[in-house]
Amino acid sequence: MAATGASGTNAVRYGTIRDNVLNLEVVLPGGQLLHTAGQGRHYRKSAAGYNLTGLFVGSEGTLGLITAATLRLHPAPETTVAATCAFPSVQAAVDSTVHILQAAVPVARIEFLDEVMMDACNRHSKLDCRVAPTLFLEFHGSEQALGEQVQRTEEITQSNGAFHFSWAKEAEERSQLWAARHNAWYAALALRPGCKGYATDVCVPISRLPEILVQAKEDLKASGLTGTIVGHVGDGNFHCILLVDPEDTEELRRVEAFAQQLGRRALALHGTCTGEHGIGLGKRQLLQEEVGAVGIETMRQLKATLDPRGLMNPGKVL
Amino acid sequence: MAATGASGTNAVRYGTIRDNVLNLEVVLPGGQLLHTAGQGRHYRKSAAGYNLTGLFVGSEGTLGLITAATLRLHPAPETTVAATCAFPSVQAAVDSTVHILQAAVPVARIEFLDEVMMDACNRHSKLDCRVAPTLFLEFHGSEQALGEQVQRTEEITQSNGAFHFSWAKEAEERSQLWAARHNAWYAALALRPGCKGYATDVCVPISRLPEILVQAKEDLKASGLTGTIVGHVGDGNFHCILLVDPEDTEELRRVEAFAQQLGRRALALHGTCTGEHGIGLGKRQLLQEEVGAVGIETMRQLKATLDPRGLMNPGKVL
Repeated sequence: MAATGASGTNAVRYGTIRDNVLNLEVVLPGGQLLHTAGQGRHYRKSAAGYNLTGLFVGSEGTLGLITAATLRLHPAPETTVAATCAFPSVQAAVDSTVHILQAAVPVARIEFLDEVMMDACNRHSKLDCRVAPTLFLEFHGSEQALGEQVQRTEEITQSNGAFHFSWAKEAEERSQLWAARHNAWYAALALRPGCKGYATDVCVPISRLPEILVQAKEDLKASGLTGTIVGHVGDGNFHCILLVDPEDTEELRRVEAFAQQLGRRALALHGTCTGEHGIGLGKRQLLQEEVGAVGIETMRQLKATLDPRGLMNPGKVL
Repeated sequence: MAATGASGTNAVRYGTIRDNVLNLEVVLPGGQLLHTAGQGRHYRKSAAGYNLTGLFVGSEGTLGLITAATLRLHPAPETTVAATCAFPSVQAAVDSTVHILQAAVPVARIEFLDEVMMDACNRHSKLDCRVAPTLFLEFHGSEQALGEQVQRTEEITQSNGAFHFSWAKEAEERSQLWAARHNAWYAALALRPGCKGYATDVCVPISRLPEILVQAKEDLKASGLTGTIVGHVGDGNFHCILLVDPEDTEELRRVEAFAQQLGRRALALHGTCTGEHGIGLGKRQLLQEEVGAVGIETMRQLKATLDPRGLMNPGKVL
């Protein structure tokens, strides 16, 4: 997670891995051991020198090898409630997300699943949810604070035309729900047995999320590909999981074209071509479009300085 | 603030400037214009390439000149309540801070002022607070959520022997309180007219805050210097403002020795020699001790690459 700058369902409340790494132990290409914040240090904030921790988080192994990480801890919530909420349209689900965040409801998790994903999760994880665009939510706090958060959220979703809200208060019920969400990849794979999964992700300003999600849905339909949409919509971040027949090179080409198009749609909306999956090999061209010539040149300089012989994860990112 | 990686009274809830900068426009030493996240981009999170934004935040002008910043916005709180709370000892005030954070009360501000600082603020800002180690607090949220936060905080401070809690609900009263806090520097200067102020800051893991604050108080007493302690204790960060006679070189030497000693105490407790003031010229030796030889060498490489002719704020930080 530290190497790719990843996040997950909790990021909307607790931040991504970037916000939660206090220190990294890194083996540099020359073999020296670097403690990015100084050995044994774990403070909340600092203004001492360049932010080496932040530079190595998300560098995808191209600057050095991370061998240990010091993480920030958060207090375990006093009470936890999860919920699912089905909507008549993608637009209504995502509008609700935007309104919940704008109302400053401190949701701990807010995940979107399109109806294809929901159907796949129902089958794979033996859920009995309505096959419709759906939000999975979780709230953390005191009993009293939760009551208020939940009530506001329900009001907002209802005013956006939600079908109904279904609560999961017991730990077992909640784990079943989140296990289903975390197994979304396998649920998607099961849609076309024998096919491979191809995941891509983008992230846009939250205000632009409804339009890109609605557009992605239409693009997906137009492409004739099988794919699901699932995402950390509280961050403006979502994934498409596309199923591709490994024998069918023409289909793979269409899948890659879809991913590139989605990346460019995100860039056009002031977003990024990847919220948490990283650049790797497949998004190097998109990275250039995203940060521009001076940005790429600055990144190349950093790479050339810290890894002059190009030993670390060669060919990736840049 | 972006150049020094600064923060302030709101950081405990909303993060430091580092957490709130989404993009920077920077003029590089060669004259090129860099947009650290790509031109016009303002997403919540990204895994696209190296984190240039994070590298330039806190670089103290040594890598390039920041000419514009894109910041994250937070919703304005529905309700705001401020409070002051006086304690019989530094230890009791700081223990309360630790307990409040451990209880996951989402305080928006929690500031510590020692009794010298409190006395100075009373005089300078015409307050009528008890002259004792004091916490200034602020809570943001809905009416109902605030009630609960405030009640928990009061219970915690009482169990640590607080003298009393004084509430400021009206906007005017709150501004008076925070104006006094923000004028702490001038209040301290007024303690010894004709003298100059010398500010230093450190930051430690919150669990080590009580011991370093109590020790700093004793060191201050032993040094015979005039000084106040004031700080963003919710982050483990505090400042000493020392008063020095500009004609008295021996006193200046003692002030500098105190600041160095405080920095080393923070380092010994796994902290940093500066939470938000930066390295500048005065803390270059402490930075070396803090990040170690490999850390310094890595920072020097970054500086040499991005500013090969050493044009940007020469001599600072490294």
